[in-house]
Amino acid sequence: VTGPLTYRGAGVDIDAATRFLDAIGAVVRSTHGPGVAAHGSQFAGLIRPEGWEQMGSPLIAATCDGVGTKVLLARRPEDFEGLGRDLVAMNVNDLLPVGATPLLFLDYLAAGRLDPERLEAAVRGMAAACLEAHCALLGGETAEMPDALGDDQLEMAGFAVGLVDGDRLPTAALRPGDAVLALPATGLHANGFSLARRALLERGGFGLDDHVPELGRTLAEELLVPTPIYVDAVAHLLAGVEAKAMAHVTGGGLQGRGAAVVPEGLAMRIDPGSHPVPPVFDLIRACGEVDPAEMASTFNMGLGFLAVVPADQAAVAGWLHVGEIVDGEGAERVAIG
Amino acid sequence: VTGPLTYRGAGVDIDAATRFLDAIGAVVRSTHGPGVAAHGSQFAGLIRPEGWEQMGSPLIAATCDGVGTKVLLARRPEDFEGLGRDLVAMNVNDLLPVGATPLLFLDYLAAGRLDPERLEAAVRGMAAACLEAHCALLGGETAEMPDALGDDQLEMAGFAVGLVDGDRLPTAALRPGDAVLALPATGLHANGFSLARRALLERGGFGLDDHVPELGRTLAEELLVPTPIYVDAVAHLLAGVEAKAMAHVTGGGLQGRGAAVVPEGLAMRIDPGSHPVPPVFDLIRACGEVDPAEMASTFNMGLGFLAVVPADQAAVAGWLHVGEIVDGEGAERVAIG
Repeated sequence: VTGPLTYRGAGVDIDAATRFLDAIGAVVRSTHGPGVAAHGSQFAGLIRPEGWEQMGSPLIAATCDGVGTKVLLARRPEDFEGLGRDLVAMNVNDLLPVGATPLLFLDYLAAGRLDPERLEAAVRGMAAACLEAHCALLGGETAEMPDALGDDQLEMAGFAVGLVDGDRLPTAALRPGDAVLALPATGLHANGFSLARRALLERGGFGLDDHVPELGRTLAEELLVPTPIYVDAVAHLLAGVEAKAMAHVTGGGLQGRGAAVVPEGLAMRIDPGSHPVPPVFDLIRACGEVDPAEMASTFNMGLGFLAVVPADQAAVAGWLHVGEIVDGEGAERVAIG
Repeated sequence: VTGPLTYRGAGVDIDAATRFLDAIGAVVRSTHGPGVAAHGSQFAGLIRPEGWEQMGSPLIAATCDGVGTKVLLARRPEDFEGLGRDLVAMNVNDLLPVGATPLLFLDYLAAGRLDPERLEAAVRGMAAACLEAHCALLGGETAEMPDALGDDQLEMAGFAVGLVDGDRLPTAALRPGDAVLALPATGLHANGFSLARRALLERGGFGLDDHVPELGRTLAEELLVPTPIYVDAVAHLLAGVEAKAMAHVTGGGLQGRGAAVVPEGLAMRIDPGSHPVPPVFDLIRACGEVDPAEMASTFNMGLGFLAVVPADQAAVAGWLHVGEIVDGEGAERVAIG
């Protein structure tokens, strides 16, 4: 091949990127409330931090997360819409344990070759999730990376920013007898997929399109269910009770994330009869002969978000009362059963 | 292979991730000023937005960017340190055109297998760059993604947040005669590498370790020079003059980014004799027979940052006076020469 080289010929189609931005403009703007400030600059998004004046000590909370290897299971455009929801959920839910209210979200999508259908579906899912989280999809980066990523590889990362009053952080001391509340998970969310794929697809021999009687649907349908947005449920909780500590159950699983909020000398006891465990977890355990402790330190085991509240405030609509804080001498930090 | 599956056996080494976080803790904390609020939660970073009380209309500015395919050229640990600097620079410099002051940076690093040496080097570079940008390396995500990414693949994305007074955004109308100032680039920065690699490595037949007389060093040394942090230079500019518009010269090159700040009916004329053009650009042009217009719409051509100021304020220490705003009837939006 001879003749002049071009950036497009080198695998980067700036026009395709521009068409993509035009196509998603309306859906992105649908998430913009009056706080988003218009500005000619294309370099950064601008947003008013509503409510700062009322805070005694305003703080900015920021977090970053991706969807991990869940992306490997997506094939149809609507699967990428679900992954877009996952990406927002993984980030905005991470703002909630410090009591922060989501303000904005930005996405980073990178692919060997931009596939407008997949990317537009992902952005539709992100926009819907941002509306549910009451935050603006303020911008993002869509990178075409020939050679660095294969044509079919897609990397999805996200960043969320929220606001919280530093005078009202959930920092009260936990005590034995405190109640552990939880929000139900819809499934695996976006953690533990490397183990789940090996257990179900390799060991179990399941195909993604196999109808699995225990699940009542195909494996792909089960695994690709998006992560819920817990913003409204946590706001409802905080409106009525004093949350002493909260955890979004992600990497490290119920064991790791639960343990992180329990101080030395105490433990969290979770009653396995207090909540339904989605059958996919038992299927993974059985197919992969996975040790129960390994399961609990990898997966959420059906509990997507935890909150520790005083014992007399345990009845909150929409929340499950799943356990309590106990003396922890010699015990595991999180004991299930 | 039989026996119980584990998350580690599935390719995700949570212990390695924890060791990595321990190893980088001190260097990350070195970027934390008194504004970073300590909190037991591991889910989100918290930082005080200093100075917003003095702003008439405080706004949060947020941006997201990656290092693109520049990552393909990194081989030695110190190369990844440079990429860490690039990642911060690409993001914090994007905050500057709206007049925002960087407050925090978060990184997203994903690899098929975590290589502590590479990742720690990247974080060292990020921390050094954050110190230079006067912002906190507030957190990030390091994802091990077996199967989704090859062992040697590394994805680097970043996210920066800054503050700006909405009453002081650079929005003054440009007029013919306004001066165009610029900050010199150190080289390609982190844009156009897909074209540069094809021109230099494929067409030109250069090896990364070849000493290139025109460059006075090896090709790898030339291409991997990190992007400068323009935070202090822009603050110095804004302390003395009224910037009407600014641009960080990234994707789209000098042509695209320059054009984005010039309104309909005007043009930006850049005097090619006003500034040195790093010889790497001529080498790329020659090796790839790249059209000059394609060069200017892909690369920064030696100018890393642009500012348009009134004609009588064109003398600013550290800034090059590279051109002016002219009537644009029938002309290209950015005319070089």
